[in-house]
Amino acid sequence: SRSHRITILAGDGIGPEVMAESVRILEAVEAKFGFTVARSEHLVGGAAIDATGHPLPPETVAASEAADAILFGSVGGPKWETLPPDIQPERGALLPLRKHFGLFANLRPGVCLPALTHASPVKQELIADGFDVLCVRELTGGVYFGTPKGREERNGEPVAFDTMVYMKSEIQRIARVAFTAAMGRKKQLLSVDKANVLASSVLWRETVVEISKEFPEVELSHMYVDNAAMQLIKRPGSFDVLVTENLFGDILSDEMAMISGSLGMLPSASLGKQREDGLYFGLYEPSGGSAPDIAGQGIANPIAQILSLAMLLRFSLGEVEAADAIEAAVAKTIADGFRTGDIATSQPGETKVGTSGMGDAILARL
Amino acid sequence: SRSHRITILAGDGIGPEVMAESVRILEAVEAKFGFTVARSEHLVGGAAIDATGHPLPPETVAASEAADAILFGSVGGPKWETLPPDIQPERGALLPLRKHFGLFANLRPGVCLPALTHASPVKQELIADGFDVLCVRELTGGVYFGTPKGREERNGEPVAFDTMVYMKSEIQRIARVAFTAAMGRKKQLLSVDKANVLASSVLWRETVVEISKEFPEVELSHMYVDNAAMQLIKRPGSFDVLVTENLFGDILSDEMAMISGSLGMLPSASLGKQREDGLYFGLYEPSGGSAPDIAGQGIANPIAQILSLAMLLRFSLGEVEAADAIEAAVAKTIADGFRTGDIATSQPGETKVGTSGMGDAILARL
Ligand SMILES: CC(C)[C@H](C(=O)O)[C@@H](O)C(=O)O
Ligand SMILES: CC(C)[C@H](C(=O)O)[C@@H](O)C(=O)O
Repeated sequence: SRSHRITILAGDGIGPEVMAESVRILEAVEAKFGFTVARSEHLVGGAAIDATGHPLPPETVAASEAADAILFGSVGGPKWETLPPDIQPERGALLPLRKHFGLFANLRPGVCLPALTHASPVKQELIADGFDVLCVRELTGGVYFGTPKGREERNGEPVAFDTMVYMKSEIQRIARVAFTAAMGRKKQLLSVDKANVLASSVLWRETVVEISKEFPEVELSHMYVDNAAMQLIKRPGSFDVLVTENLFGDILSDEMAMISGSLGMLPSASLGKQREDGLYFGLYEPSGGSAPDIAGQGIANPIAQILSLAMLLRFSLGEVEAADAIEAAVAKTIADGFRTGDIATSQPGETKVGTSGMGDAILARL
Repeated sequence: SRSHRITILAGDGIGPEVMAESVRILEAVEAKFGFTVARSEHLVGGAAIDATGHPLPPETVAASEAADAILFGSVGGPKWETLPPDIQPERGALLPLRKHFGLFANLRPGVCLPALTHASPVKQELIADGFDVLCVRELTGGVYFGTPKGREERNGEPVAFDTMVYMKSEIQRIARVAFTAAMGRKKQLLSVDKANVLASSVLWRETVVEISKEFPEVELSHMYVDNAAMQLIKRPGSFDVLVTENLFGDILSDEMAMISGSLGMLPSASLGKQREDGLYFGLYEPSGGSAPDIAGQGIANPIAQILSLAMLLRFSLGEVEAADAIEAAVAKTIADGFRTGDIATSQPGETKVGTSGMGDAILARL
């Protein structure tokens, strides 16, 4: 039978709770679809700081190198907020993982199911049928990693600087990921930049236009980032796939997630280079944070973590049937009215559940 | 009697129409409050490109140098969209004006009046009482103007780069503007940065904290830009004054304007250094664009332009009573039910008006 291996980095806050539900789902699809996934669990984030002094211990990296993918929970919490940025749980774990594994393509669905439009902060009439946007964020370039970055004295005063830089090849590869994703959807790609101000955006736009020739069926359009931040709110349903550079993607994909109203439902994938076999090494994590305010209460929505597992099965393990089955089971569970607190209303036909209750309901529908 | 002078740069699209209403209002307050404002009108944007080949003719700059302030309409339109970015109406006029006049402080109110919450894309229950946020955007620093900026070949491929750079003194002066504004409001200041990733943001945060010692009554908090993009949507009413660097301010102030739902109502001020007499040279313009789709139809909302005039009277001319009177007349006009198309509903008690009808209604209440 097919065998795979993954590392599980549950992290802090609600991470371990929602991860436990994902593992139950994973065991169910292993049995059902006849494959095995060897899992090794490792420390990351605040939990790793407490145990080892570092948010990303070398042992965690080494174990992940030996795996096909990382299933990541969430990291961070008030306990570690006063540490210097470099060794804070989020930044100190995520940025080095992205760089080390070359995870340049961040896929973040911004989905609002028609049954959950009430949870969105946006007026019902603007999102009546729900929406399904895919944000493709470049994840290893731009101002995050560009050099020089630092601080010096100039004319007797401190000056600090970062460099927003893109090589053409970096833009080409993320553009291809985005066009390919669009081909499997509504074939509409919006590239977001600030080409009226930034030299890096001029190269971005130019390169995206060039790559569009390889995908003649995809309708490409462009928008400035300030305008995109407005239009996403007013007409989220009019977008299909959106591609943008690292910093803009950080802002817009979070904005999109908030607009969807279902942060607890949204998975994400951070992928490296595609291998010969068509699969990717990847890191998969919920879009939301570690939610320390509700951690340990058994009430967090595990769906974002479970859908992250589905993405892992699809993109890193090639277990497409298992991924489809999980996504279908989640959709059915929502359709059947199961709701954790974050997506509940007081409407008839809803069954309010906690973390493991939601896990049970999804398992029952697998 | 007190005499002042301003340049009027009406620009393109709806610019001239809404400017005409502002001029009527200006004449009324001159008469009422006993001061004179010499006005000279000049070309800018697409209109200037058509006439002179350049979006910001030297003559326009020279005239503005001789004035106390600039009342700016709006620029841009489909006709000029295919020009190279540098000489496009918006970028080619606004960035040089900001740099030339050292307009480092951009004040952008994001206001949703309780009577106009229906126009916001955000659900009624999240903004029931409306909201009033002031975005203070640094306008002459950061990645907009930082050098090096450009493109070169590295290892045989094109690479493009921009530099996000802040001197401590640039952060100090914008922080003081923001704290001062907060002192006149609810005394709450939120500084938005990305200090977990950017060296320039680390200096930003450090400096804002230092300046906060000068304003012990103001409650200062910090938020990462990705989180701010989310929280603005979910709880706009919980913010008072927000201060941030140039690029983040570009994105967040537009996002905030969209959330308010009343883009046609929102003025803005871009101020230089405060003079000895307490006044500022400034450029005042509506937050919305030139709206070419509705230009020439006499239906644009002139309120953003009229409130921009009020800001000009307040900050650049020191005609505070006139500014107060205009703002009160606008508020009364809205309370009395006058609505241009952008803010109309089909509720009883509304009088639907065009551009000049709105001007008439405001004039009548002055
Ligand atoms: C923690 C932080 C460095 C990170 C980022 O900015 O990329 C986070 O906001 C994210 O989007 O995953
Ligand atoms: C036109 C453009 C250069 C400008 C900016 O990015 O500052 C505009 O978006 C604005 O906010 O005034």
